[in-house]
Amino acid sequence: MTIKEIQSYLGQFFDSVELEGESDGLISAPAKIESAQKGEVSFVANEKYVKYLSTTEASLVIVHHSVAVDEFSHTTSFLKVSDPYTAFVFLLKKFVIPRVVAAKGIAPTAVIGEGVTLGEGVSVGACAVIGDRCSIGCNTVIGPHTVLLHDVSVGDDCTLFPSVTCYDGTIIGNRVVIHSGSVIGADGFGFAPQRDGSYVKIPQMGIVEIGDDVEIGANATIDRATMGSTVIGRGAKIDNLVQIAHNCRIGEDTVIAAQAGISGSVTLGRQCVIGGQAGFAGHLELADRIQVAAQAGISKSFLQPGIALRGYPAQPMRDQLKYEASLRHIGAMKAKLDHLEGEMIELAKK
Amino acid sequence: MTIKEIQSYLGQFFDSVELEGESDGLISAPAKIESAQKGEVSFVANEKYVKYLSTTEASLVIVHHSVAVDEFSHTTSFLKVSDPYTAFVFLLKKFVIPRVVAAKGIAPTAVIGEGVTLGEGVSVGACAVIGDRCSIGCNTVIGPHTVLLHDVSVGDDCTLFPSVTCYDGTIIGNRVVIHSGSVIGADGFGFAPQRDGSYVKIPQMGIVEIGDDVEIGANATIDRATMGSTVIGRGAKIDNLVQIAHNCRIGEDTVIAAQAGISGSVTLGRQCVIGGQAGFAGHLELADRIQVAAQAGISKSFLQPGIALRGYPAQPMRDQLKYEASLRHIGAMKAKLDHLEGEMIELAKK
Amino acid sequence: MTIKEIQSYLGQFFDSVELEGESDGLISAPAKIESAQKGEVSFVANEKYVKYLSTTEASLVIVHHSVAVDEFSHTTSFLKVSDPYTAFVFLLKKFVIPRVVAAKGIAPTAVIGEGVTLGEGVSVGACAVIGDRCSIGCNTVIGPHTVLLHDVSVGDDCTLFPSVTCYDGTIIGNRVVIHSGSVIGADGFGFAPQRDGSYVKIPQMGIVEIGDDVEIGANATIDRATMGSTVIGRGAKIDNLVQIAHNCRIGEDTVIAAQAGISGSVTLGRQCVIGGQAGFAGHLELADRIQVAAQAGISKSFLQPGIALRGYPAQPMRDQLKYEASLRHIGAMKAKLDHLEGEMIELAKK
Repeated sequence: MTIKEIQSYLGQFFDSVELEGESDGLISAPAKIESAQKGEVSFVANEKYVKYLSTTEASLVIVHHSVAVDEFSHTTSFLKVSDPYTAFVFLLKKFVIPRVVAAKGIAPTAVIGEGVTLGEGVSVGACAVIGDRCSIGCNTVIGPHTVLLHDVSVGDDCTLFPSVTCYDGTIIGNRVVIHSGSVIGADGFGFAPQRDGSYVKIPQMGIVEIGDDVEIGANATIDRATMGSTVIGRGAKIDNLVQIAHNCRIGEDTVIAAQAGISGSVTLGRQCVIGGQAGFAGHLELADRIQVAAQAGISKSFLQPGIALRGYPAQPMRDQLKYEASLRHIGAMKAKLDHLEGEMIELAKK
Repeated sequence: MTIKEIQSYLGQFFDSVELEGESDGLISAPAKIESAQKGEVSFVANEKYVKYLSTTEASLVIVHHSVAVDEFSHTTSFLKVSDPYTAFVFLLKKFVIPRVVAAKGIAPTAVIGEGVTLGEGVSVGACAVIGDRCSIGCNTVIGPHTVLLHDVSVGDDCTLFPSVTCYDGTIIGNRVVIHSGSVIGADGFGFAPQRDGSYVKIPQMGIVEIGDDVEIGANATIDRATMGSTVIGRGAKIDNLVQIAHNCRIGEDTVIAAQAGISGSVTLGRQCVIGGQAGFAGHLELADRIQVAAQAGISKSFLQPGIALRGYPAQPMRDQLKYEASLRHIGAMKAKLDHLEGEMIELAKK
Repeated sequence: MTIKEIQSYLGQFFDSVELEGESDGLISAPAKIESAQKGEVSFVANEKYVKYLSTTEASLVIVHHSVAVDEFSHTTSFLKVSDPYTAFVFLLKKFVIPRVVAAKGIAPTAVIGEGVTLGEGVSVGACAVIGDRCSIGCNTVIGPHTVLLHDVSVGDDCTLFPSVTCYDGTIIGNRVVIHSGSVIGADGFGFAPQRDGSYVKIPQMGIVEIGDDVEIGANATIDRATMGSTVIGRGAKIDNLVQIAHNCRIGEDTVIAAQAGISGSVTLGRQCVIGGQAGFAGHLELADRIQVAAQAGISKSFLQPGIALRGYPAQPMRDQLKYEASLRHIGAMKAKLDHLEGEMIELAKK
């Protein structure tokens, strides 16, 4: 790809893509700004990295309109856009070597149940198992060893990587990506305690519904509802090893980092960002756009949109940081207290 | 099912099932009290939900004997029992659409080793692998893609969902349920440090033993013992993504919520309840019926039965809540201290 | 094995292996010191267990040179070495019943892609899937149901247990062990936020590289790099359910306990020890030989080798323990403060 071709490609996404430097150079790969070589393209989206502009050997760097590039190397060209990070992300797609999760068509070792509906262009990998009455949308890829129990519906243009398991009745939208080892629709953790201390299992009759454009990482678990549906909203992104319990509702475009755990019947708003290893008690609700710090423990509902939470039990960021700062002063407080006590004794003597 | 038939069915489990209202109505599905429709059955077991009794459209509601139902809608019938929650749980089972994890018999793509013993009525799903000398009890279901290495013993009436892995020598009781992706009997995490900073692996020669009526969630890991057995007691319930390390002993009817981690050689008593994301240091012991709060960090043994633990390092709930409350007063303490200091200066001046 | 044969076997690893007692006894199994029987061998490496020496029925016990054994039972022999624990570990290997993960050769149900290179003595288990252009080294065992996507390279003498997934391009060294359910090389969790609150996926073009002698537990996840490699250094040991995000670099011989989570672009030094459920913010660095306590939250870099860290946010062990001790005094501080206030009021009255 020439620099000119890249400029024209990015022009699809940005109103203005300004070129500074020569336009004929061939670009063969993307690279990080600190290690980019001749023939490579990189980007600077963060002030911290501007310093590399004077030393980089990249042939092309994507920067923000506001960067004054004329002071930098004459062997580097620049494309200026309003959002260099996203521009670079779009550009990366042009350099990706295509991954093949499963070849087009049905692998001879795949096992297809009765009454299955397959859209055009479907790929089903080696040893994949598609249960009775499942429906797979057009151009969807089912990886090797992925198992769909019966009555599962998967939309168009999805990728289920190898060894995903979807229990019976799971409903998956379009353009959904699920990474290896994730288990969708296993029974919720519901048991009724008996007088003798044992438990009776509560039948888990609901399902999991996953909206369009959701991505789910590796070895995550999303349990089916006791009744009704556990719902993952459109566009949500869920990282590796996340636990989402029965009857949760995760809002659209909400992001949940690795190893976070959401207890039963929790409702998260839209565009929330949940940090890694954060935990939620059951039956609570977060408003839209709430940010939860890593390792926080959320013990009650927070209904004010857009706030940030931190700590255990979690409270609004500002209160929590103030509280943590007070705690850090405890040594000084103790010293002052002992000093006062000494002075008091002196005074009392007089 | 008619209301009368439901009354008679529940009569198997309860001494007294009183009907208030008409008995011929047909019930076709269970539902939550707040959204139940005509023809549906629901329940109220918690005072918080009594308010819905006056507005519900359910045709039948199961309540406690003590609820005065004559003040509510004439279109709703009531069944009164001593434990409405458990009654509803038993009733749910009558409405469950049967899930088929694997059809009866051995799937043609399953791989069965030498010297395998299969009980009557066994189901082995597509591509399941049963190692040499394994034994599978009557009516047990081995899901598609589940792998048993050699010398594994599984009891009667178990369900191993798709893609479970049991390492060699694992012993599983009767009526055990293991959800997808769980790994039973992988090597304990044992390495002997060497002088040069590297590690030598300690052979993990033990096994895992799982008692009757245990249920294990999805993507959990239970490691084999170094020597002897890691033991999961009868009736224990273990949620998704739980880690149980080598040589642990989990007591009967103990419940462990998602993402909790139990280090090596920990012994938990009977009927304990362990919260989500709680963590345990190694080689410690909890007495029976101890409750551990979510995210707690247990750093030593607690041998008094029935107590509740919370915090990091965890201590008895009452001490910990008092301690946390004191911490919350630190701002007020600081203010008082500064005030006293000011007064002291005034006094000293005089 | 006779005691004499064991002495001679250990002589391969230790300069001095002293025998006290008779040398002809037959040893048939290893056992724990507290439960060992006649015909069994055990060890004592920790003072806590010395008390068992007077009551054990073991026929042979391995102890440190410094233990005075003549005061103990005449039916027990002793072998004295400089490191009884490691001696016992080496000895365990002589008693291990060989586990068979997959028989030599290629199982008939395995699926082998085009252009695959297989070394001598390779085992590929039932239903394993080896993608196009993969390369498997000599004597490596690929368990049943393990899936390698295309262009994966695995070295010599490795064991991949059942149902491991390696994404395309993964590079694995020699003598690597990966337990069941682990997912190597799934896409990093990278999404570019858009103005409308949705996200665009950042192509994850890098790979995972795993050094020689690494062991990875069950259901762990190690994500591929966005560009370049996520690197697991030689000899590192990674426990069950650990999350290692994109672009991390884990140092040689570093140990990471279960359920720890390492965020993107973290660099850990050599010979670090990371406790269970510990969490790391992204883009930070730890020096060599740093120890991190269980459940700690590391929020910044620590560049001094060999220190220990604890708490949230984590700080050096000594500071943190002092801080925690101060916090524990808060009740006493409050009492003293109230007392001083009372005295002050008395004084002011005078």
